[in-house]
Formats: sequence, C-alpha cells, structure tokens
Amino acid sequence: MPRQYDSIRPIKWENDHLLLLDQRLLPAEEHYLVYERVSDVAQAITDMVVRGAPAIGVTAAYGVVLAIRDHYPTKNNNWRNDLEPDLQKLADARPTAINLRWAIARMRGVMVDNVPVDKLVESLLCEAKLIHQQDIEANYTLSDLAAGLIMANSTVITHCNAGALATGGYGTALGVIRSAYEQNKINLVYADETRPWLQGARLTAWELKKENIPVKLIAEGAAAMLMRQHKPDWVIVGSDRIAANGDVANKIGTYSLAVNARQHGVKVMVAAPTSTIDMGSETGEDIPIEFREEAELLNVVGHRIAPDGVSAWNPVFDVTPASLVDAIVTERGIVEKPDAKKIKELMSI
Amino acid sequence: MPRQYDSIRPIKWENDHLLLLDQRLLPAEEHYLVYERVSDVAQAITDMVVRGAPAIGVTAAYGVVLAIRDHYPTKNNNWRNDLEPDLQKLADARPTAINLRWAIARMRGVMVDNVPVDKLVESLLCEAKLIHQQDIEANYTLSDLAAGLIMANSTVITHCNAGALATGGYGTALGVIRSAYEQNKINLVYADETRPWLQGARLTAWELKKENIPVKLIAEGAAAMLMRQHKPDWVIVGSDRIAANGDVANKIGTYSLAVNARQHGVKVMVAAPTSTIDMGSETGEDIPIEFREEAELLNVVGHRIAPDGVSAWNPVFDVTPASLVDAIVTERGIVEKPDAKKIKELMSI
Repeated sequence: MPRQYDSIRPIKWENDHLLLLDQRLLPAEEHYLVYERVSDVAQAITDMVVRGAPAIGVTAAYGVVLAIRDHYPTKNNNWRNDLEPDLQKLADARPTAINLRWAIARMRGVMVDNVPVDKLVESLLCEAKLIHQQDIEANYTLSDLAAGLIMANSTVITHCNAGALATGGYGTALGVIRSAYEQNKINLVYADETRPWLQGARLTAWELKKENIPVKLIAEGAAAMLMRQHKPDWVIVGSDRIAANGDVANKIGTYSLAVNARQHGVKVMVAAPTSTIDMGSETGEDIPIEFREEAELLNVVGHRIAPDGVSAWNPVFDVTPASLVDAIVTERGIVEKPDAKKIKELMSI
Repeated sequence: MPRQYDSIRPIKWENDHLLLLDQRLLPAEEHYLVYERVSDVAQAITDMVVRGAPAIGVTAAYGVVLAIRDHYPTKNNNWRNDLEPDLQKLADARPTAINLRWAIARMRGVMVDNVPVDKLVESLLCEAKLIHQQDIEANYTLSDLAAGLIMANSTVITHCNAGALATGGYGTALGVIRSAYEQNKINLVYADETRPWLQGARLTAWELKKENIPVKLIAEGAAAMLMRQHKPDWVIVGSDRIAANGDVANKIGTYSLAVNARQHGVKVMVAAPTSTIDMGSETGEDIPIEFREEAELLNVVGHRIAPDGVSAWNPVFDVTPASLVDAIVTERGIVEKPDAKKIKELMSI
C-alpha cells in the first residue's frame, strides 16, 4: 500500500555506486555524494554524511559490497584476509549503534565458503538491497503498530532525527508520526533542536516540513515547560542500541527528556527495528557511548561561539533506563514496560 | 576586602554617560556602547545589549537619570507627566525580571515633591550609583553566605549566565562560585551552553575562563547523563523573579535541570538579591513569562539553521516550583526548602 508521507531516501544504489544524501548540508542543500570505495564509506559514517542507527547499518551493508569489489580483482586465495581491515574499519566507524555491526554480520553470512568468489559481488549486493528493503518494511510495520497506541488529537515531542534520514526510509520515530498523522491522530509535532549537531532543527524540521506535517522547533531546555503547560501525549524517539533489559541508548538529551516525561505523566515510546536490539549488552551499562570532538559544542554550524581555551564535555548518546520507557515498538511487536523477560520473548519470536 | 575573582563590570557611568558592555558581541569582542538617551537604553535592554535581572535593574536606574536629563531643560511644570512615557518604556523593555520595575520604583522614590527640580539629576544619579553599588555588595554577601553550603572538592553545574555580566558586578550564581572557588572548594564548573541565546557558551565560559576558574561546556541535554555519571554536588543558578511562595523564574531550561537534579539527588541553589523577590507574585503562575522571536531558535549566532517556513516555540524563562529548590540564597540570609512563610520572614528582616 503506498504511503502518503514517504518521499525521502537518504541511501541509494545507482549505476553500481552508493549514493548518500549529505546530511551535513541539510537543510540548505540537498546533495548526494557518490561512493565507490569502502574506506570512503567508513569515513562518511564517521563524519556523519549519513547518521542514524538503521541508516548506517544499511550504508555499511553496501560498504561491504564495495569492499569485495575492491578486493575481487586480485582473485587470490587471500581475499578474506585482505578484506578484514576494511570490514573492521567499517565496524569501527561509530561505536554506539549496534546496527552497524549487525549489518556487517549479516553480510558476512553471505560470504560462506561454498559461494564461488565470482558470484560474491552479486550475492552481496542482493543481500545489501534486502537489508535496505527490510529496514523500510520494518519501519512501515512498526509505525503502523505504534500508531495504534496514539489517540486522536495527540501532540508529540520528538528528539534528534529518527526519520527517513536516519533509516533506509520512512523512519522509526518519524515513521510512527507519519503513520499516525496519515490516520489524522496528530495535531502537532514539537521537535527538540538537539544540540550539538542540531538534528532536530536541521533534519527533523526539514523532513516534516517537506511533507507538510505540522512541526514547531523548541530548545531542549523548553521541553519540561512544554510538558507542564501543554501536556503533550507522547515523547517518541528512536534508538541506537537497546540492551537486553530494555535500557535504551539514544541521542544525548533523550534521558533528560524521559526523566521529565515521567515527572509530568507524558508517555515515552521508543521506535526501533529489532536490528537495534543487542542481546549481547545485558544492560545500558554495557553499551559503549561515543564521545565526539569538543569542537561540536564550541562551534555552531561552523561558527565559533565559545571563548578560546574553553573545553567541553561532549557525549553524543545517553542511556534511558527501561523503567522510564512506556513502550518499545519494533516490527515484531510492541513491548510495554520493557524488561529482560519481555525483550527475550520478543527476540525469540 | 578585595576579591580575588572580580574583574568584570558590565555597566559603567563615565563622563555623564552610561556605558554598557555589548553582551551580544561576547566573547568575540569586548566593546562598550555609550548611551545618553533613555529611549536608547530601553531598546538596549530589549535587544539584550545588557541582560540578567539585576543588571537590567541597575541599567534602568541609570536610564531614569538620562530620562530626567532629557526632560529637565524644558523646566516646565509638566516634567513629571513628560517623563511617564519614558519610564513606562523602560519598565516594559522586558517583562519577566522584577528588578527592572523594582529599580524604577526606587528611583521614583527620589522624585519626591519637595526636591527642587534642579537638584533632581544629582539626587537621581546618587541613587542609581547606590543601587549599583548595593547590588555588588549584595552579591558579595550572598556569595559568602552560600559558599558556606558548599563542601570541599565540589563540582557544580550552572545554567545561563548569572555572573558579573548579569549583575552590577561579581554575579549571583557565579558570585557563589567565585567565593567558593576562592575558598578552594570547587574543582570544576560545568556550564550549560543555554540555547537559544547561548549565555552559557558565550558569557559564563568567558567570565570563568577570564579569571581562570576551571569550566567545561556541556549541551543542555547532557546534564542528566552528567548527574548520573559524575554526581555533581550542586546546580547553582540565578533568578529573574522569585514569587512569594519561593517559586523561581529563571532562564528556560532551569526547570528541566531542577527536575533532573531532584531525580539524581543533586541539590539546587538559587542565588539572588532580595530585589529579585516579588511579594506581589503569589506563586510562579503569576510571573509573566517572556516569549521572544522565533528567529532566535531558527538561527544560531546569525546563521540560519532551520528550513524555511518552520516555526518555533520560544519561551525564554520557565518556573521551577519551590519544592525543587533546596536553598534560596540572598544578601539577607539563606532560605532552605523555601515556602511562603519563610520568604515572608526573610522579606520582613
């Protein structure tokens, strides 16, 4: 069924090349960069040309295709060894999102011993396209499921960008918002601007505005007052990694928002495909949190704001404990009041 | 007794003119603007050349001197009536900080019927200088009192700028930090960058760096994770207006920080002179909250970040209920766990 609000694709495979919409330039410019080498793809992930846990997973899958193509011409028996440093670089491009490692693991599954080397590129490209398409399908499914939790005339707050841009397409948190808006259930979306990278102001506002879904920007500090005065119905966010007990790593600021939501009786929904759930992380304590360079805080969109010589503390993710989450919505189903037992059940479906 | 950390004065009276350090240009440029007309002073307050509740109070006091000087040459009997629109414009320059109205009321007290008109300018200038000096003295007193609440080896978080720049000098929250740092009690100050106007990144970081007090910038969204991981000892903030029941209006984001502080067992201190306490506001509900133009959020330091056509919700203050405040520190004493009875007692000292 065609979706009414589904116009954005940040990742494309065209003419044997990977195309990434350069998210550093949005909303001022819509420009796709073209990639043909895996090392450039790893750098693009580190530099946030593409960001968002599911989107960097899909990108890494295509990256593996490029890696094989780099090494295939050698046709020697060492191609598996030759490949390793490239796959490692790809896996290490960013530490927090588990989807990156998940996608590379799936691609490794295709590189079985009995596939002839000259069929590998074709098989891997098939798998990468499948990962991409399945991510979009998962978003459709989880979004439609989650829309069932949202009542008519709802107002929601979202943080960072868990939209089409952060995924293969359609989005997780913004997928939920798209589906609920299509069902006339959402009056207004408040978007946290999301410092330091301003994903809310630059990306979420751009996505929603592009599809005429009503959006208002707020400073992150204003969310608590908004909750007190206007009582929004839901905080809806994505995730970069969900631990086996339901603890949720997501963009810095999510935890603060969840604490305030609980204080004000606003429900918190985390929308994510199961590829985001890491059964190897027992709790949020086991999730590595990325710290990025201080310059992201000392400057804004390339312009210096802080005095010379001042330093900054710049963790770019935080962990929201499962106890503050009302529902985790995945393509396999909804987990209300998540805990280790319920997550284990979900993952064994 | 000379203070070790006390090098900044944002407001000066020199050669019969009012000088204001242009806080819009900090930290890139240290430039004083010169004022000789009250209407320009009112505009400077609206435009945030000078900001911070006590600082705009002091500025308004000098503004009244300029107003009288504007009208004095007419020497007609209507000078009181002629003056009114100017004083009204000054009082309306910003709505939330009570200190503005408080200072104008004090200046009106000098304009009694039996003062000869030709002595007025001199008397008013004396009163403005007294208001200015008393504000600095109040900051010294409340800061020394508050330092008694801070243990050795403390780490603190501050929000916005309640520093020398926000007052006649020395500061309220940063005054407390200065006094406690002089007593070797503070290891590190975390400064919230404070969107949208970036008072933390631009002003607080500049003040503390200038006096070599160790400071690290954080995004507002990172404060909750910081509390969870590093358990700071205090959140220390200023205030723009304190209601009679101890509810505290302060820069947007303070309320969110206070909710998170309570959740993490971090204490919250509000440092403010009694000129900030408004016995006419029964609770926080009675405090008018200023909304500023959406452009402050859609742009950062003059550079567009949000897509065209997107709107924003930009309240620039919020109210923290007294129940989330551990101590209000004034020049008249400390009020722990503030409530209406304790505030009334303080104000009747």
